[in-house]
Amino acid sequence: MSLFRFSICAVSIAATLLTVSIAQAQQPPALPSPDATNAVTLGLMKGFPPPPDKVVRLAEILKYPNIRWAYQHLRELGPTAAVWRGAGSVSPLPAAPRELDALSFDDDKGVRLTVADWQRNTYTDALLVMHKGQVVYERYDLGMQAHQPHALLSMSKSLTGLLATELIREGLIDAGAPVSSYLPELKDSAWGDATVQQTLDMTTGVQYQEDFADPKSGIFQYLIAGGLVPAPANYPGPKTITEFLKTVKKDGAHGAGFQYKSADTEVIGWLLQRVTGKSYAELLSQRIWAPLGAQEDASVWVDSVGTQLTSVGVSATLRDLGRLGEMLRLGGRFNGRQVVSADSVAEIRKGADAEKFKAGGMPMRAGYSYHNHWWIPHDADGTFEAKGLNGQHIHINPAAELVVVKLSSHPVPNTAFTHTLDRRAFAALAEALRSR
Amino acid sequence: MSLFRFSICAVSIAATLLTVSIAQAQQPPALPSPDATNAVTLGLMKGFPPPPDKVVRLAEILKYPNIRWAYQHLRELGPTAAVWRGAGSVSPLPAAPRELDALSFDDDKGVRLTVADWQRNTYTDALLVMHKGQVVYERYDLGMQAHQPHALLSMSKSLTGLLATELIREGLIDAGAPVSSYLPELKDSAWGDATVQQTLDMTTGVQYQEDFADPKSGIFQYLIAGGLVPAPANYPGPKTITEFLKTVKKDGAHGAGFQYKSADTEVIGWLLQRVTGKSYAELLSQRIWAPLGAQEDASVWVDSVGTQLTSVGVSATLRDLGRLGEMLRLGGRFNGRQVVSADSVAEIRKGADAEKFKAGGMPMRAGYSYHNHWWIPHDADGTFEAKGLNGQHIHINPAAELVVVKLSSHPVPNTAFTHTLDRRAFAALAEALRSR
Repeated sequence: MSLFRFSICAVSIAATLLTVSIAQAQQPPALPSPDATNAVTLGLMKGFPPPPDKVVRLAEILKYPNIRWAYQHLRELGPTAAVWRGAGSVSPLPAAPRELDALSFDDDKGVRLTVADWQRNTYTDALLVMHKGQVVYERYDLGMQAHQPHALLSMSKSLTGLLATELIREGLIDAGAPVSSYLPELKDSAWGDATVQQTLDMTTGVQYQEDFADPKSGIFQYLIAGGLVPAPANYPGPKTITEFLKTVKKDGAHGAGFQYKSADTEVIGWLLQRVTGKSYAELLSQRIWAPLGAQEDASVWVDSVGTQLTSVGVSATLRDLGRLGEMLRLGGRFNGRQVVSADSVAEIRKGADAEKFKAGGMPMRAGYSYHNHWWIPHDADGTFEAKGLNGQHIHINPAAELVVVKLSSHPVPNTAFTHTLDRRAFAALAEALRSR
Repeated sequence: MSLFRFSICAVSIAATLLTVSIAQAQQPPALPSPDATNAVTLGLMKGFPPPPDKVVRLAEILKYPNIRWAYQHLRELGPTAAVWRGAGSVSPLPAAPRELDALSFDDDKGVRLTVADWQRNTYTDALLVMHKGQVVYERYDLGMQAHQPHALLSMSKSLTGLLATELIREGLIDAGAPVSSYLPELKDSAWGDATVQQTLDMTTGVQYQEDFADPKSGIFQYLIAGGLVPAPANYPGPKTITEFLKTVKKDGAHGAGFQYKSADTEVIGWLLQRVTGKSYAELLSQRIWAPLGAQEDASVWVDSVGTQLTSVGVSATLRDLGRLGEMLRLGGRFNGRQVVSADSVAEIRKGADAEKFKAGGMPMRAGYSYHNHWWIPHDADGTFEAKGLNGQHIHINPAAELVVVKLSSHPVPNTAFTHTLDRRAFAALAEALRSR
């Protein structure tokens, strides 16, 4: 492969990551302590100007603990487009605070820990718990303020999937049609004969790996193309998102098994914009942020030619994500109006084939499926989730009338690392609140 | 000078500018027509992705007509910090529309033209006219929407100057103290023995020229340091704003004559942040944007280490600038509260020594002075103004109870090029509205 020699450049990037391939890991890695990586006490980006050793640059964003500052300040590191909140009034989020820090539960090794421990141990920047539409718990750490957007990473995918679900329902997109019928540029790529639905469920067969431990993995070409990782000098690879997508080739059959990959989302994001003639930020603003009565603008990262990163690019505030979760819990209804259709929410919650999910190599998430870019556990409470790198979560539990939003800067990128613990915490919160 | 050989790189940048040194110009340059440079009809950045020849990149931002798109989309080209509007309600801007397009006046050559002609001929992106606190005229062109922030360029200086005036009044800064008493890093620079007031009035003697026609001019080192112009390969010059300021040497005496220079503002901006321990964006938010009841967040460009560009970096919406102008017209009172002190507004309006202004080489602005980063014409109506590159204006006429905000993307950087015409238009508006 012509890109091979340049993968060496990516090694230095990957080497700075505390990467753990959970499936193979025998031992948990030694992690830096949450306190020792607190961006505020470390003084990251503090001072005018900050001392050289406290500066966080985009080129070193993946060098831990830089994300502990950067995930609250992504727009200060590169180009972004605004997701306008609209001109309407802010929808109320009534508060009914409840002491939850001391609530305790057993982790998967039988060790008792509290909600406060869990937050600390999982490097939580902000946590919101809503029950029956009321904010029962809201906490910020590392200097984060309520109005500050935090990086959603792959929770962006779920926003993209929600928009796609709506456009499919409205008949603007045919889920069974090949992607290339909307994006002829992708005719010779992996997506040439993949359907929209296969791409939305990530069952496409694509020569692309989302492995942060492997510098040759497609994820690095994607991040370089998107401008989130600087291109090495004389980098011959694709320099924009759409150029990158065109280079990705088919591998195996479409529709066979789930394989998690950001590239699928960028295809969907591109398609949404092509079909509507509106940018992703405009779609998100007009169809979700404005009708939700969001309190703040969200933002989305753009590449060097203005393409918005629909897979990992969005930043939003904790409360606005609470509004989003609450709207979905209520079948699309929020702020006195139907924000998205009940049909779309039902479609997402239906999930996909849990058998096909097994191909994805995520034993921790046994029983799950991934449908329209949402994680569906197929559990008794009917929970559904958005998830993102380094511990981003929207957990919606309709049976318990619960929404949890957790924003984090965990040293391990793959959120599967804390999956069992997080699920136990969500369940403990559901149990405690359900019994009220 | 060691920087000389690198100035060659800047030539290519400067060569793309339609630069005119107004003082020396014998003939007006041939300008591209406003219609032929309309970003919307040209299709700049239109499409997903835009065709290669329609892409606007930061590196080519100064290549006309790219600013006709870029000034509405600056945050999409690089790193910015949010100037939060706060959590309060939006202050009302009552509308009382009046037909002003057909209002006519004579230009300096005796040619009759209308307000509509004036807007078109000066490449106006948005125009707001307020009379007695009511919006009598509001118009957007080139696809600009009311909620979109537009680059203020050097009108940012007036925001910085307003903040400085407030901090001086509050005793946090001593106007007569040397800059280096607050910023010891500048002890060996031009500002080592310059006072805060000399820096605010730009009467410092500094080896730095603000000449867009001269690629060796300090303005290019400043823009490269600020990240608004990309550094040429192996550029040995300063790569951040504060590093740049340290390299600037004294030239002549301080306090002798006015000389317009962005570097002075960056010193003031740095000083504000050092003294308060807050970022410029925080100061602007807490002291101006939030109390004004601004409708939208503003934004400010940041350099590679997070230093905010207090001289040219702010973008804001037309209406929020109308709120700002109205607040200043009313002696600091707006939105039911005293936003800035009446003393500060009075101090700004007092102006500086018009004799010293003559040294600045701006014959078109005869009779003006520049005080605390505001343009003071010393005219009968007591007008005062903020101005920025390529035709940015806030014109406040207390006698006529008039505020005009004009945002533009004129091909000639120096706003002095249209100065006489703009002043005639402002006067015509004042006359027409005053007689109501």
